[in-house]
Amino acid sequence: MTDNFLDQGKLICVDWGSSNFRAFLLDDKAELVDRIYFDKGMLELKPDEFEPVLFDLLKYWPTTPIILAGMVGSQKGWRNVKYITCPVKMHDLSQNLTHIVNAQARKVAIIAGVDTEASGAQYDVARGEETQVIGAIEMIGQALEKQAVFCLPGTHSKWMKIADKSIVDFSTHMTGELYDLLIKHSILAPQPASAPKIEDDEAFIKGVKCAKADGGLAHHIFSARTNMLNGELQQNEIEPYLSGILIGTEIKEMQRAIENMQHVYLVGTQALNKLFQLALQQFDLPSSLIDGEKAAYTGMSSIAKQANL
Amino acid sequence: MTDNFLDQGKLICVDWGSSNFRAFLLDDKAELVDRIYFDKGMLELKPDEFEPVLFDLLKYWPTTPIILAGMVGSQKGWRNVKYITCPVKMHDLSQNLTHIVNAQARKVAIIAGVDTEASGAQYDVARGEETQVIGAIEMIGQALEKQAVFCLPGTHSKWMKIADKSIVDFSTHMTGELYDLLIKHSILAPQPASAPKIEDDEAFIKGVKCAKADGGLAHHIFSARTNMLNGELQQNEIEPYLSGILIGTEIKEMQRAIENMQHVYLVGTQALNKLFQLALQQFDLPSSLIDGEKAAYTGMSSIAKQANL
Repeated sequence: MTDNFLDQGKLICVDWGSSNFRAFLLDDKAELVDRIYFDKGMLELKPDEFEPVLFDLLKYWPTTPIILAGMVGSQKGWRNVKYITCPVKMHDLSQNLTHIVNAQARKVAIIAGVDTEASGAQYDVARGEETQVIGAIEMIGQALEKQAVFCLPGTHSKWMKIADKSIVDFSTHMTGELYDLLIKHSILAPQPASAPKIEDDEAFIKGVKCAKADGGLAHHIFSARTNMLNGELQQNEIEPYLSGILIGTEIKEMQRAIENMQHVYLVGTQALNKLFQLALQQFDLPSSLIDGEKAAYTGMSSIAKQANL
Repeated sequence: MTDNFLDQGKLICVDWGSSNFRAFLLDDKAELVDRIYFDKGMLELKPDEFEPVLFDLLKYWPTTPIILAGMVGSQKGWRNVKYITCPVKMHDLSQNLTHIVNAQARKVAIIAGVDTEASGAQYDVARGEETQVIGAIEMIGQALEKQAVFCLPGTHSKWMKIADKSIVDFSTHMTGELYDLLIKHSILAPQPASAPKIEDDEAFIKGVKCAKADGGLAHHIFSARTNMLNGELQQNEIEPYLSGILIGTEIKEMQRAIENMQHVYLVGTQALNKLFQLALQQFDLPSSLIDGEKAAYTGMSSIAKQANL
């Protein structure tokens, strides 16, 4: 790194989750200058270890202000930052930053998570996704409709309803975790020897279509077994097929739950965005793809700017 | 055992599954005289080991005819017995027994499994449950309606639609296996130190009610976590609560899929029957409880009698 390079950095945005640490160095136009990835999740850290670990990871950017989002602000994180209850807009987040006094007398602040009771009768929480959606809203700009639906696919997918740039309601879906459980621990787990994992859009779509029928998730996944028995499915198609059933079920349930959903903004990795887009097509739902990482640091930098961090 | 005791035995009914072996000795009135349980599942056996293992397990009943049902008739069982396709009635099963020539020149026959494509677009299979339902139909007798719904709760629950004493369609639900996966391997797994498993009807019913709302299974199970966060749920209520969500979802999906379902016959263990009955009550669905084991040997003995085994 050159001095010049370091001089450009005006803000560090950190997405610190249970198993990953991602820091983004932005210039004064909020453009990405550099990034640092670590598999230094926060689950293994004690409260007094966050500060030394953070400053050590960011030692090449020694004075730049830091804004953080994600599970770092949870009960098991650095500070247990109180949730802000929906509806939540950018202003609510920027006016409620948790500032952390630190050894380097540096500007360090954590963005609050959000919670909601609006979705059915089920209490729900998010940490990090609210900031990604705020960033995605900034990225979309003028084109954003008054009412919009965002989906953030992942181990625990989030669906967020937006009205007038506020998050009015959201729900979490353990879709990715259920997939992992089935692939690793269930009777549907493919035999490792004979089933190299493959990308297979055809088997994936077959799974999505299965999900659209009556019977429910616990019924549909059993067809991974019966379709092997009757030769409809090959061993190495099980993973994409189950992925299709799980993602298809998530979309079907959200189509039921969200009245008049016409379009979905997908905010995630390229691979997950693509999979969800393919599944949404089976429901005749158009979608737009937004890079989840860019949404994260765009959200953090917008909040930091509004807060004059 | 006395000689007199052995003399009473006229038929041995064996339910031989992947992990359990259950044999029932019946007298000439099809009443239970004795039973043998073994955790000698068939998954570990090679095809030529079934006969010696069976005759060894049944050595105190050396000459009695044997009828078998369950996974023993599958690809990984003693013989791969072809499925009979729905609609299936007792006569179809009794006329299609697979007789096995054996060293003791004894009457030994396996009951076929059943399959269906009627349920949505999903191919489905059963081995053993068809015999239990045939037995349950015999046990109900004259009181059986022309159209009826049977639920056989378990690791893989089966719901079977009956018309004129025929199984016309059925579906499998991996509800019990999903529960095990969540309790053992997911982020919802209770902390062993602080959460002794408890029976808790209140937490169970809370879970069933959660399942009735919009959002779907992958969403609802996340509430086991969020309800801990907001103090609605205690650590030791997680298991009954998740059980309620899973069983509630199964019932909700079946209520959607089976038109005009008014009543459910539950065929299973006392504990599972009770849980499912409690959940069905939350859907205003009355149910009758039938002992699954008695249904199994009643079904086998009725089929054996009709086949003149």
